[in-house]
Amino acid sequence: MQTIYFDNAASSWPKPPQVIEGMKEAVELYGANPGRGSHAMAVKASRILFECRKNLSKLLQVNNPNDISFALNTTAALNQGIKGFVKEGDHVICTNVEHNSVRRPIEYARKARSVSVTYVKTDTRGILNIDDLKAAITSKTKLIVCNHSSNLLGSILPIPEIAELCRKHGVKLLVDAAQTAGTLPIRIADMGIHMLAFPGHKGLLGPQGTGGLYVEPELELEPLMHGGTGSQSEEIDQPTVRPDRYEAGTQNTPGIAGLNEGVKFVLKETVESIHQKEWGLTQRLMAGLMEIEGVTILGPELGQNRTGIVSFTVQNADSSEVAFILDQSYQIAVRSGYHCTPLAHECAGTLANGAVRSSVGFFTTDSEVDMLIGAVKEIAKHFVNKV
Amino acid sequence: MQTIYFDNAASSWPKPPQVIEGMKEAVELYGANPGRGSHAMAVKASRILFECRKNLSKLLQVNNPNDISFALNTTAALNQGIKGFVKEGDHVICTNVEHNSVRRPIEYARKARSVSVTYVKTDTRGILNIDDLKAAITSKTKLIVCNHSSNLLGSILPIPEIAELCRKHGVKLLVDAAQTAGTLPIRIADMGIHMLAFPGHKGLLGPQGTGGLYVEPELELEPLMHGGTGSQSEEIDQPTVRPDRYEAGTQNTPGIAGLNEGVKFVLKETVESIHQKEWGLTQRLMAGLMEIEGVTILGPELGQNRTGIVSFTVQNADSSEVAFILDQSYQIAVRSGYHCTPLAHECAGTLANGAVRSSVGFFTTDSEVDMLIGAVKEIAKHFVNKV
Repeated sequence: MQTIYFDNAASSWPKPPQVIEGMKEAVELYGANPGRGSHAMAVKASRILFECRKNLSKLLQVNNPNDISFALNTTAALNQGIKGFVKEGDHVICTNVEHNSVRRPIEYARKARSVSVTYVKTDTRGILNIDDLKAAITSKTKLIVCNHSSNLLGSILPIPEIAELCRKHGVKLLVDAAQTAGTLPIRIADMGIHMLAFPGHKGLLGPQGTGGLYVEPELELEPLMHGGTGSQSEEIDQPTVRPDRYEAGTQNTPGIAGLNEGVKFVLKETVESIHQKEWGLTQRLMAGLMEIEGVTILGPELGQNRTGIVSFTVQNADSSEVAFILDQSYQIAVRSGYHCTPLAHECAGTLANGAVRSSVGFFTTDSEVDMLIGAVKEIAKHFVNKV
Repeated sequence: MQTIYFDNAASSWPKPPQVIEGMKEAVELYGANPGRGSHAMAVKASRILFECRKNLSKLLQVNNPNDISFALNTTAALNQGIKGFVKEGDHVICTNVEHNSVRRPIEYARKARSVSVTYVKTDTRGILNIDDLKAAITSKTKLIVCNHSSNLLGSILPIPEIAELCRKHGVKLLVDAAQTAGTLPIRIADMGIHMLAFPGHKGLLGPQGTGGLYVEPELELEPLMHGGTGSQSEEIDQPTVRPDRYEAGTQNTPGIAGLNEGVKFVLKETVESIHQKEWGLTQRLMAGLMEIEGVTILGPELGQNRTGIVSFTVQNADSSEVAFILDQSYQIAVRSGYHCTPLAHECAGTLANGAVRSSVGFFTTDSEVDMLIGAVKEIAKHFVNKV
């Protein structure tokens, strides 16, 4: 029996078959080093990197594909964005629903560079009042970092409004699109986003080991990685030319070739229709879970906008127990625990027992949703009657 | 006609067929997030990472597999090793045959943290006199960083002697094994190496996008990347537990699954026999090239030990012209230019026109070597008679 997969917020699965085909071609046909040689195979490897950058630019509304640099994962991109930007004495704002990939680099900057930090609170469902963000801005504020959607609550932050606020106050905005790239429309130019970090292996349907960072042309960050780029080799400093400046060392060509196929798939399906589909699945799931005694759903209410994440708790049960039973008895894969976001758990009031996070993806079906509902119903009954 | 591939020092090609099979399985069968869930697929993904660490430990003589952390590439591993270690006022020593992946992070540390740096000279063939290194050590010396083999010259640095020197003076040794992991025996414990950075996509026959860093258990580095690890989520600081401390964010599971297959292949063939084979190929190549008027070979002499790299110049020709003709007229892939190591070019006296670098691999054949010799003979004739 195949796994019923509800862990798409960690890594999407399955992938479109073209993804592994693209990776296979990269390994077998042009497994040379991109940007490090002028022979045919190296040129072909360079070309696939550029093609992926072009497709990402189309998807995210980026004018110059070279403003996108590849990274191992969203975390690396966020570290580059945050640590490459903040300076001694800066004030940084983020929200209380950030992932540790934002919180930990910022807390590091607080210690290492005397950066001051404000965590603006959302409500318990992860909804941000833009006035609260506005009130946090001081004359020293240089950067706002926030996710587009909470990886626990599925709530969506109002990026265009936040960007407008940033524009007015001369503050830069770094968006963590870990849960939205490929599943929620992102228009970098229209929205006025200055930096955006994204994963390749979630909504973009590419393989793990991929992701990237968009940096607006006006902004020059201190590179986190120094090393060879195949360009300006004789210079002691990292080249200023993009994307080389932020891409030291050999890139993950097979991964990026796979990502390119994922992005092409998303472009063809359109982000709008993917979001619509995933939203429909979450509504079906929420409606079913709401009927179950002892189950509490986190995040936005039924009918409100959200991404494909539906986290919930079961009365009298530790989230890890529920996840364990789902896995062992139903072959349903969800994630339990803290999801690297203790802040959001504090906000939702689930810091004690964590939460069960189920997350749908493009390939999730209605009948899988119904199976999850049925399984939770049986499990909840057991726990609710236990005490 | 298939490419005759002599660019293995940039990325090895082809790979054993098991490599792409391993990647395919990772994407198709257990494409979940390692360390981020307790369901069966996530557990399987975690297991393949550990299996790869175990096989790498066997190959590199590491006692605890968790002392190896994965990285996007050798550059990222070297950045972690260097920037995570050096402190304000430290003195660092490296050699004049280092790659930019060592030179640039060190020069960054010089500027950003007032670290002082000494580049110890090798002779023009890349051979180091250990007494010169010894003479460079001061009371402030904290770190020696050096490659195991020059990526231009193929010369081999005497790591055991360097490590012994480090031990005596209480200095830490970081080895850049970009050109030797999988092709030259490395025994971390016996050799007394404190840190070692390695690529997955060269001698270890894995895919691009993989590599790693060994850090001895006694040493705690400042992580370069802060973020989620799936462990100790509630802590503000990066966990101290390894490998999590140096592996923030989602790792490249398919790449590592492929690398695991590459490492298993190397373990089966044995590094010793691979080195022997590659050395034989370089000797055949050198003997042939030496017969050609106008061709000068860089690095160690015929009969001396070297890795699979044979760089050369052709009288009256720019290295890029030679590489271009080899590609266009013979479908032979080599690399020209500076190979991200201007230091080594200065040392070899080839800073003006660069050099043509040919590099053999496990799958290179004698007849391919003969084809390269034949092609260079024709090309050299043209240039030598030109003036």
